[in-house]
Amino acid sequence: MPAEQAAVSPYDVGLLRGYAVFDLLQTIGGVPFQFTEHITRLRASAKMLGLEVPATDDEIAEITVELLRLNECTEATVRYVLTGGESPDGMHFDPSTPTFLIITHNMFEVPEQFYVTGAKLITHEYRRELPEAKTTNYLTWLRNHHKLDAAGAIDVLYHADGLVSEAATASFYVVRDGRICAPGEGVLRGTIGELVMGLTASEYELVLGPVTLEEAFGAEEAFITSSVRGVVPITRIDDSTIGDGTVGPVTTRLMEICRAAMKKAD
Amino acid sequence: MPAEQAAVSPYDVGLLRGYAVFDLLQTIGGVPFQFTEHITRLRASAKMLGLEVPATDDEIAEITVELLRLNECTEATVRYVLTGGESPDGMHFDPSTPTFLIITHNMFEVPEQFYVTGAKLITHEYRRELPEAKTTNYLTWLRNHHKLDAAGAIDVLYHADGLVSEAATASFYVVRDGRICAPGEGVLRGTIGELVMGLTASEYELVLGPVTLEEAFGAEEAFITSSVRGVVPITRIDDSTIGDGTVGPVTTRLMEICRAAMKKAD
Repeated sequence: MPAEQAAVSPYDVGLLRGYAVFDLLQTIGGVPFQFTEHITRLRASAKMLGLEVPATDDEIAEITVELLRLNECTEATVRYVLTGGESPDGMHFDPSTPTFLIITHNMFEVPEQFYVTGAKLITHEYRRELPEAKTTNYLTWLRNHHKLDAAGAIDVLYHADGLVSEAATASFYVVRDGRICAPGEGVLRGTIGELVMGLTASEYELVLGPVTLEEAFGAEEAFITSSVRGVVPITRIDDSTIGDGTVGPVTTRLMEICRAAMKKAD
Repeated sequence: MPAEQAAVSPYDVGLLRGYAVFDLLQTIGGVPFQFTEHITRLRASAKMLGLEVPATDDEIAEITVELLRLNECTEATVRYVLTGGESPDGMHFDPSTPTFLIITHNMFEVPEQFYVTGAKLITHEYRRELPEAKTTNYLTWLRNHHKLDAAGAIDVLYHADGLVSEAATASFYVVRDGRICAPGEGVLRGTIGELVMGLTASEYELVLGPVTLEEAFGAEEAFITSSVRGVVPITRIDDSTIGDGTVGPVTTRLMEICRAAMKKAD
């Protein structure tokens, strides 16, 4: 339906109580990229909130394609939002009648320069609530969003108790002794990260385990991955330069692999 | 407007990103109780998110009264919800065009038994994000809500690093050496709590400072306060009895004072 007519009840528990999960993908050649991975992750997020996506993968795929056609989108970002549904008292809701929205946005724009010179992260002490689920709770991120522009940064790197977890809207990786390291738990599984790590498994060892903030600052290379940005090299964190400040060989290789995978889908 | 026609945009950042605050009051004799206190707190919550309530107190009061009349409510719970407004990309929004909803619910029902024999809390390790603001983030509460019914508990008592903060939907107090003690920071200011403490300032000393979980379990008395429940005695926390397990003299006196204040408003 037209966006102006689409509406959510003011009693929706996703609005009144922030009880909602979502997932986001981009299209390539008009086709949702990593569709199954995203819907699988959405279902996993939903399960952690005791919710269930009220449609099969095939049904969701059909509606998505139809929506893209109606919106005359060649390329778009597609957002799937699932809430607990209406809650007349703002407390109780029936998980069997969730609200499920499929929304298209314009394609996410990333300055090309970030891929060439590398991008900057700023750190913020914070641990996401229920980090393995992609919930709609982005309070801390939005409250601090103005700092990104002020610092010329692409994203915020969250850390707590000396350990880094993830960027607000991306997975975070460092390269140490030629190996790729990332937190093994307390983070959202990244669809692009897992794709690229899978494709380069024979080239680079992947170590999933605690990554300290100190290790992040002292890394040979650092990068983030996200569905709407692919692999983005990180050459600065706060006021520190990462490695020699240029995009390193491992990150360069991963960017190539990621682009090739996306091109293949086109 | 009729609830069925009322609608929020699916692009609302309160829905997509949980970027919203709210406040809740009850009417007494058809008149909003502690109206100014609640709207003042709503404005304070809004400010912490960089938002502003787009109406004066008088305007909000007028709309509230009109809404109660249209809904033919004699007594009701009124909810004020303020979000950052529409966000076409799910990231940027204009704080000067917020979404502001005024919603009435049926009166909140509290089993009378809770006031006679005391109620039970169950503990949960958790610290609210931005606890001084009444945000819509109740993810942890709703995920654990089924445990309340199973335990016969009225609410969840949050604690972190050995210190208690507040119940999920109420302020928490203990009585120690005849004095009333409550956390002085990292909690939402309670409108009923502050009212009752003000009215009994000459009778009881109020100590605002850290309260350990151990002190909560070992308290002479414990109680919670909330706008929709008044003062509720707590005689059990998890499997432990508080004091001698009956409603103590301080709590009894505070309940009387609270009821008298509400009756006076009627």
